Amino acid sequence: MFALSASLLVKEYAVYAKHSGIPEIKTVLGGFIIRRFLGLWTLITKSLGLVLAVASGMWLGKEGPLVHVACCCANLFIKLFPSINNNEARKREVLSAAAASGISVAFGSPIGGVLFSLEQLSYYFPDKTMWQSFVCAMTAAMVLEAFDPFRSGKLVMYQVTYSSVWHGFELVPFVLLGLLGGVYGGLFIKANMWVARWRKSATWLPGPVIQVVAVAILTALLNYPNNYMRAQCSDLVSNLFSECSKLTDDQFGLCKTGAASAGTIILLIFAAVLGFFLAAITFGLQIPAGIILPSMAIGALVGRAIGIIMEIWQHNHPNFIAFRSCEPDVPCITPGTYAIIGAAAALGGVTRMTVSIVVIMFELTGALTYVLPIMVAVMISKWVGDAFSRRGIYESWIHFNEYPYLDNSEEIPIPDIPASQIMTRIEDLVVLTATGHTIASLTAVMEQHPYRGFPVVSDPRDAILLGYISRAELAYILHASTQPPRLLPPETEAFFAHQPLADPRTTLDLRQWMDQTPLTLPRGSRLHLAVSYFQKLGLRYVMFVDRGVLQGLLTKKDVWYVLNGAEETRRTAGRGEPMGGGVARGGGDGEREGLLGVGRGEEEVEVVSPIGDGGSNLL
Amino acid sequence: MFALSASLLVKEYAVYAKHSGIPEIKTVLGGFIIRRFLGLWTLITKSLGLVLAVASGMWLGKEGPLVHVACCCANLFIKLFPSINNNEARKREVLSAAAASGISVAFGSPIGGVLFSLEQLSYYFPDKTMWQSFVCAMTAAMVLEAFDPFRSGKLVMYQVTYSSVWHGFELVPFVLLGLLGGVYGGLFIKANMWVARWRKSATWLPGPVIQVVAVAILTALLNYPNNYMRAQCSDLVSNLFSECSKLTDDQFGLCKTGAASAGTIILLIFAAVLGFFLAAITFGLQIPAGIILPSMAIGALVGRAIGIIMEIWQHNHPNFIAFRSCEPDVPCITPGTYAIIGAAAALGGVTRMTVSIVVIMFELTGALTYVLPIMVAVMISKWVGDAFSRRGIYESWIHFNEYPYLDNSEEIPIPDIPASQIMTRIEDLVVLTATGHTIASLTAVMEQHPYRGFPVVSDPRDAILLGYISRAELAYILHASTQPPRLLPPETEAFFAHQPLADPRTTLDLRQWMDQTPLTLPRGSRLHLAVSYFQKLGLRYVMFVDRGVLQGLLTKKDVWYVLNGAEETRRTAGRGEPMGGGVARGGGDGEREGLLGVGRGEEEVEVVSPIGDGGSNLL
Repeated sequence: MFALSASLLVKEYAVYAKHSGIPEIKTVLGGFIIRRFLGLWTLITKSLGLVLAVASGMWLGKEGPLVHVACCCANLFIKLFPSINNNEARKREVLSAAAASGISVAFGSPIGGVLFSLEQLSYYFPDKTMWQSFVCAMTAAMVLEAFDPFRSGKLVMYQVTYSSVWHGFELVPFVLLGLLGGVYGGLFIKANMWVARWRKSATWLPGPVIQVVAVAILTALLNYPNNYMRAQCSDLVSNLFSECSKLTDDQFGLCKTGAASAGTIILLIFAAVLGFFLAAITFGLQIPAGIILPSMAIGALVGRAIGIIMEIWQHNHPNFIAFRSCEPDVPCITPGTYAIIGAAAALGGVTRMTVSIVVIMFELTGALTYVLPIMVAVMISKWVGDAFSRRGIYESWIHFNEYPYLDNSEEIPIPDIPASQIMTRIEDLVVLTATGHTIASLTAVMEQHPYRGFPVVSDPRDAILLGYISRAELAYILHASTQPPRLLPPETEAFFAHQPLADPRTTLDLRQWMDQTPLTLPRGSRLHLAVSYFQKLGLRYVMFVDRGVLQGLLTKKDVWYVLNGAEETRRTAGRGEPMGGGVARGGGDGEREGLLGVGRGEEEVEVVSPIGDGGSNLL
Repeated sequence: MFALSASLLVKEYAVYAKHSGIPEIKTVLGGFIIRRFLGLWTLITKSLGLVLAVASGMWLGKEGPLVHVACCCANLFIKLFPSINNNEARKREVLSAAAASGISVAFGSPIGGVLFSLEQLSYYFPDKTMWQSFVCAMTAAMVLEAFDPFRSGKLVMYQVTYSSVWHGFELVPFVLLGLLGGVYGGLFIKANMWVARWRKSATWLPGPVIQVVAVAILTALLNYPNNYMRAQCSDLVSNLFSECSKLTDDQFGLCKTGAASAGTIILLIFAAVLGFFLAAITFGLQIPAGIILPSMAIGALVGRAIGIIMEIWQHNHPNFIAFRSCEPDVPCITPGTYAIIGAAAALGGVTRMTVSIVVIMFELTGALTYVLPIMVAVMISKWVGDAFSRRGIYESWIHFNEYPYLDNSEEIPIPDIPASQIMTRIEDLVVLTATGHTIASLTAVMEQHPYRGFPVVSDPRDAILLGYISRAELAYILHASTQPPRLLPPETEAFFAHQPLADPRTTLDLRQWMDQTPLTLPRGSRLHLAVSYFQKLGLRYVMFVDRGVLQGLLTKKDVWYVLNGAEETRRTAGRGEPMGGGVARGGGDGEREGLLGVGRGEEEVEVVSPIGDGGSNLL
């Protein structure tokens, strides 16, 4: 076991193979690029590392990492199709669909996968993507069923068929489970983030590999004495969900009756507390590790415990007013259902998903008659969890890692200020004038300034906005025109405006390389509106004009800095951010993405490198 | 029965109570307003009419109309909350959630309801709406369960528990069912639309009430001899879905064996053909009528027939190579599952939904192990259906009724032309200059031109865009300033620009009533981009500028006319369109909707009347 954990050293070769990968996928689908995150090396190390990590018996899940693996595969596969690979919008659609298939195979839950991708991961999810994800998740599930890796012949992993329906009074414990799930989610996020911060600040800690080994040893020592913890997470969950009368061998002693069941309750609660503790220190280590299954297990442990308590209570006081609706001589309480509801509530508290959890739970278990209690518990769990903190676990990690993810939900408070307060003013921008350049002078401007593009104005005094040229297009055309067949000398005149006297053979007309219809907002626009532009139109920058005169430029990253508070800006400065092309704030750091698919169409060039190989694909 | 149908005369009192209402709800959620469509009278007549229509035994469903009823209730209820009622965006969120609860109670399918609202109805569906719909659908299902109208004690309406799993070879008939479902959907839409067109063009036809009675009599005559058709649609579906070994009384003779079953097959197919014919003439009559349940019934009839054929085949040739995987002495084929898959495929063909159908089907039946075959069938059915026509039944009715619905899917071909080609040029616009007005002259402009708003420019020669004032705001302030306390005379000077010499007590400064930061696009922008603005930012108009100079104005309706072809424009001109405030094309017909919730915030005035009461709510 330790040996396996130790072999996670491989991971050192691809640092993005660690963790669940879901926060990063969210960031990527939100329109930013993380180099090498979806590359071949990440795929290989993550796949191997995941197998080893799960086999090590540590308290982690395989679901999140499988989503990452699916996205890596998709990203490598679409490199074969340049028409998709060069279109950021379509690439993201493919990644959304791949994520759906990841969950589809992880839980055997095709519809749940589509909804997970929709609810948790995706930033833009048009109808078309829904349909693509549907086909993708279905195919994945069909292939899984054909391979039948668990030799069970069915897709439903933890199938249960309960012989009873639920009673009205059971809503009280179900609501309690929802509450507990929310409290668990809130506390877990706080604890996990506290561990992560502590780990980052405690410089005396040994390296990540030693940490992994230490946690693995600790896990082994703590788990061995406890019957429940010794098992694999998924076995445990499967047993917790099952009904006693259907269980052939009671491996975990869950179905003891009488006095012995008191011990079972204590063991279950103890296992849940231990699981909470282990999951909090494991999630965030440098290994592939998901949080979905551990959360479900913890919820199921607590749920089962409450179920057994209810069962004993009902058994001892069958005449209590609430239990009147029970039929005599038939088991009234099914502790397995409490486990399912507890698992759903815990998952809801941690991830803050709603519809997807319900669908995943009933695709996992087939407990269709319990759909209403599950919905109630998930709803309450989300309410309670949101009271602790509005961020789910994945959003918390995005925040912790300071990924520039612009939350799409309408719940972030956007300060009601004019966007012009935070834009980069024209005085601080590097703008190009329409005329008076040579190839050499433009090359010099590009070498001097790292910005991703430059606004073009009529002349410096009267800065009428003419267009915007991206660094990539400018670099390409300047380079191309000094090569055969044109072979223009560096002192060639270059301009962005109509020059009737210029000889097209000896001068360089850059107008066709410039975006002549850049999107603009009026100067007085509020920040709300600018944020809508970024979120809904998928832009990366917008320029502000007043009656045609350029006033300034605002990038998506600027907005992200503002919305995420100024104190973090300072902290970020010192760290090597894994963002592609992370250039200085305030410059023309942006490129209109392919998302709109509008405007200049085929001419549009994606500057940012395709994820993974670091090359930049010009025209 | 006839008497009941005839009493549908009541319906004459609220014409929007007819039909399923789903095309209209889609249009409303897409940002247009249909007066009285969600009013109190519609609610009353639709509810009563629906009860009568279902009781009449005609071949129609109650699901679509229930969605409409739910939306009416929501619309009336939110009138109590002015903060929601005056915000179009929030109003639509509430309507989306109400639609989810409508499906939730119609099928006992809360998750299916949320997805139906997401996939079929809603134009904008942010995460927040998902969550709201979830809570709403859950509450609705809880209340339904508490009332327990069917006295079955469960929410799952057609619960089935199949004792067998499916075999690989069964995929072939499942794919066939998908094909048939798609063909059914494609043909049904064509037939239904043909009937609708014929009914509109055949002027010699009697009035709508006589038509309803005639169809009701025809239905009765045709249905009575056929055992299957005589039953209520929902009873029929329930029986078709069930497994023979679980059925206590075989009311429909579905479980006959041997030679008798050949007769059953013929009767089933005959009933399906008859049902197709009846549904095609019934859907579109002036009664509340849905298409979901009839489609499911037709699909289930065909599915059951194919299931019985497979059963006989397997029974007679147990050694055929495909049937090797069957265990001996156990029924290998379950015809009920074929009925479920057939129903899902037919529904997919007609409505072109995907995920929601799968979820509704398994919330209806609990046939979880059959989720993959259902997905395969729905997928193929959608493919085949799309090959017939890209429009589902609801989109076809939207198209037929010429509602100005701008399809959000990316599949409509947008001509690659500059938006300036179809915009209303400044020469044809009624624009206001910044100065030189009096209250009387502005009132005269408003009386003379019906447009919904007016762009404001610096002066006629050098038309620098200063802002946009909506008709409502202008009317309000002109009216208010001639009343106490200001009591300005009609000859008072009014202006839209800073006038340093003007006395604020004796002149009217209209700047604060004007949108000073109207959204603009550069003149050369392509139509694609303008459509994105309308679809993604929820605008109703956008202005085009070139270096600050106003060039023209484009409204959402203009775009709709262009995308839906010119010949329809002509046809429309003669008909009384039920759109609120449908003014002449080309004017400033539009108002920035509350959707963005940006810009001028509280000052924003909704010009269009709140649905239902016809009043216009000014500040």
